[in-house]
Amino acid sequence: MKLEIPTLLLNEQICRKNIRHMAQKAREAEVSFRPHFKTHQSAEIGEWYRHEGVSKITTSSLTMAEYFANAGWKDILVAFPANILEINSINILASKIDLSLLIESDETLNFLVKNLKKKVNIHLKIDTGYHRTGISWDNFDTIQSMIELISRSANMEFTGFVTHSGQTYQAKSPSEIIQIHHESLRKLSKLKTHFSSERFIPCTSIGDTPSCSIADTFEGIDEIRPGNFVFYDVMQSELGSCDIKDIAVAIACPVVAVHPERKEAVIYGGAIHLSKEFIVDSHGNKVFGLVALLGEEGWTEPLPGNFVSALSQEHGIISLSKENLSAFKPGDVICVLPIHSCLAAHHMRSFMTLQGKQIATMNS
Amino acid sequence: MKLEIPTLLLNEQICRKNIRHMAQKAREAEVSFRPHFKTHQSAEIGEWYRHEGVSKITTSSLTMAEYFANAGWKDILVAFPANILEINSINILASKIDLSLLIESDETLNFLVKNLKKKVNIHLKIDTGYHRTGISWDNFDTIQSMIELISRSANMEFTGFVTHSGQTYQAKSPSEIIQIHHESLRKLSKLKTHFSSERFIPCTSIGDTPSCSIADTFEGIDEIRPGNFVFYDVMQSELGSCDIKDIAVAIACPVVAVHPERKEAVIYGGAIHLSKEFIVDSHGNKVFGLVALLGEEGWTEPLPGNFVSALSQEHGIISLSKENLSAFKPGDVICVLPIHSCLAAHHMRSFMTLQGKQIATMNS
Repeated sequence: MKLEIPTLLLNEQICRKNIRHMAQKAREAEVSFRPHFKTHQSAEIGEWYRHEGVSKITTSSLTMAEYFANAGWKDILVAFPANILEINSINILASKIDLSLLIESDETLNFLVKNLKKKVNIHLKIDTGYHRTGISWDNFDTIQSMIELISRSANMEFTGFVTHSGQTYQAKSPSEIIQIHHESLRKLSKLKTHFSSERFIPCTSIGDTPSCSIADTFEGIDEIRPGNFVFYDVMQSELGSCDIKDIAVAIACPVVAVHPERKEAVIYGGAIHLSKEFIVDSHGNKVFGLVALLGEEGWTEPLPGNFVSALSQEHGIISLSKENLSAFKPGDVICVLPIHSCLAAHHMRSFMTLQGKQIATMNS
Repeated sequence: MKLEIPTLLLNEQICRKNIRHMAQKAREAEVSFRPHFKTHQSAEIGEWYRHEGVSKITTSSLTMAEYFANAGWKDILVAFPANILEINSINILASKIDLSLLIESDETLNFLVKNLKKKVNIHLKIDTGYHRTGISWDNFDTIQSMIELISRSANMEFTGFVTHSGQTYQAKSPSEIIQIHHESLRKLSKLKTHFSSERFIPCTSIGDTPSCSIADTFEGIDEIRPGNFVFYDVMQSELGSCDIKDIAVAIACPVVAVHPERKEAVIYGGAIHLSKEFIVDSHGNKVFGLVALLGEEGWTEPLPGNFVSALSQEHGIISLSKENLSAFKPGDVICVLPIHSCLAAHHMRSFMTLQGKQIATMNS
């Protein structure tokens, strides 16, 4: 494997195992599995899900839905508040596949009632506590009137309720994640009961990787849509969603300078590769990535006390532990475990497996 | 102009004015102008510099140097510690153009002495106080022995000293920037004097946009390499490098939801568009961008008290002022002035001028 510039390495074995485990978990919990593809954005990696029986997916944009529709996916939910400026693209895509959109506002709903030309499934986006988007879960009157409007529309099929408990990313412990998860289940179950009839039972769908990874029960839930689990990352490992060994991607970065006098090394690998996402460690340090070595069979576990402490556009600064002050020299390649693999993968635009095979994405 | 998805708008008039002003300033100060092209990464925008007499440029990677070499640039400095793993590409590029590399370590120097096959100009990277990369400016012995080694090498031409006073980005006021600038000038001047001889006077080069924008004098300096000034951004405006009216780019983002009850709107425009770069305002808020309206002739000045307060992969959350709680609805398009235009432009990959013309970059 020839590494000259920052390269996004993918451990295919770990990645396939992560997909297999989540698919298995969904089967055992008897929930439908509609994985979010925003993390990998790759038609080829998408095929690995098909082997686990996946037939419907989630994307974060219409552009991404178009890409995966071209790759043969026929049932796609765009898990982003419908953008009415893209109405032409919505109508075109809806003529090709089973398209599901998220709605959370009257304005958008009214616009789509008038302008949809093809049948689209409509999920209502429900806020169960994250407060990013969505209708408050207990706003039954609004929800009722929106469902009525949807039901009267020729090109809309009301399908159910979608939430994303993104507040799990702020949790201080796995037990807090479980608590948030059960709070969301409770709210969605109430909604489901309230809006069920003899003729129709709405689908309930949750999405965040921390809940889907840590929780064992999904009462009242019909569908899970996690995305990040395919690679996991340092943030998920800190949250307890995964073990550090479950992380399936690392950015291989050339060392270009060493400064033992200030306990630092400089790598070719910056904000345009890793993103500026960081966590704050127990010493108050900003950590933009963990440092591992490149071995025969992939990367090692992270070297304790070594981390990416600062990023410029193309530079990364590695804070070195006392033990590693002389460990690196220009021309070495180190591996950085990303804080947020969705952003790092998006920025890197393609993968290289440990066997040296290139895997493209929609951004390649 | 049809805007459906996040789009990087470019005010060509402001951009050309920014280029013209910096070129003029360099001429008046009698310093050479080698602008950094990492901010725009566009061959077409590169042409606008030629109209101001620019013939030599700076890039932040060899890949970027190759792109601009293909666009006809013949004198390129890669202002990044030379990455010896790219030796083949270095030799190929050096056979085509007048290539300058930065060196700061013995290991890299020794490797290049043995492996360069074509003539390359070598600048030593000097640390005058930023402490990111470089040889400490007062480490005369190391510098002396490196210059000697370079001078004995058949394929190396020692050209001078390069520094980047990135610590100006931490300055609390324009006067502190001037102070840092003069400290750098003083150190580089000492180096220049020390290593000048009858036969050779080394070139001295500085790079940061805050110093180049705010300072009026450049004693002892032969060359300036600012990059960000071409677009400027909110961070530069906060530092005093520019007026808010000098910002030449904004990201047009569709509004997809409004939540007046929590004083927020949601836009299609997230971390993959704006980057996660933020500043902290005087109230302690994290600010990921300022909000402006789209008018007939570009965007307005930022709306006071409205800003991007959070970013997910594709979502941006706008914190709305009391006055603007009902100002937006789904389907509107707002403009976000980026905190860091280099990253936003890199992520967006292409520009649209206010006249609706697409401009490509090396990432398009």
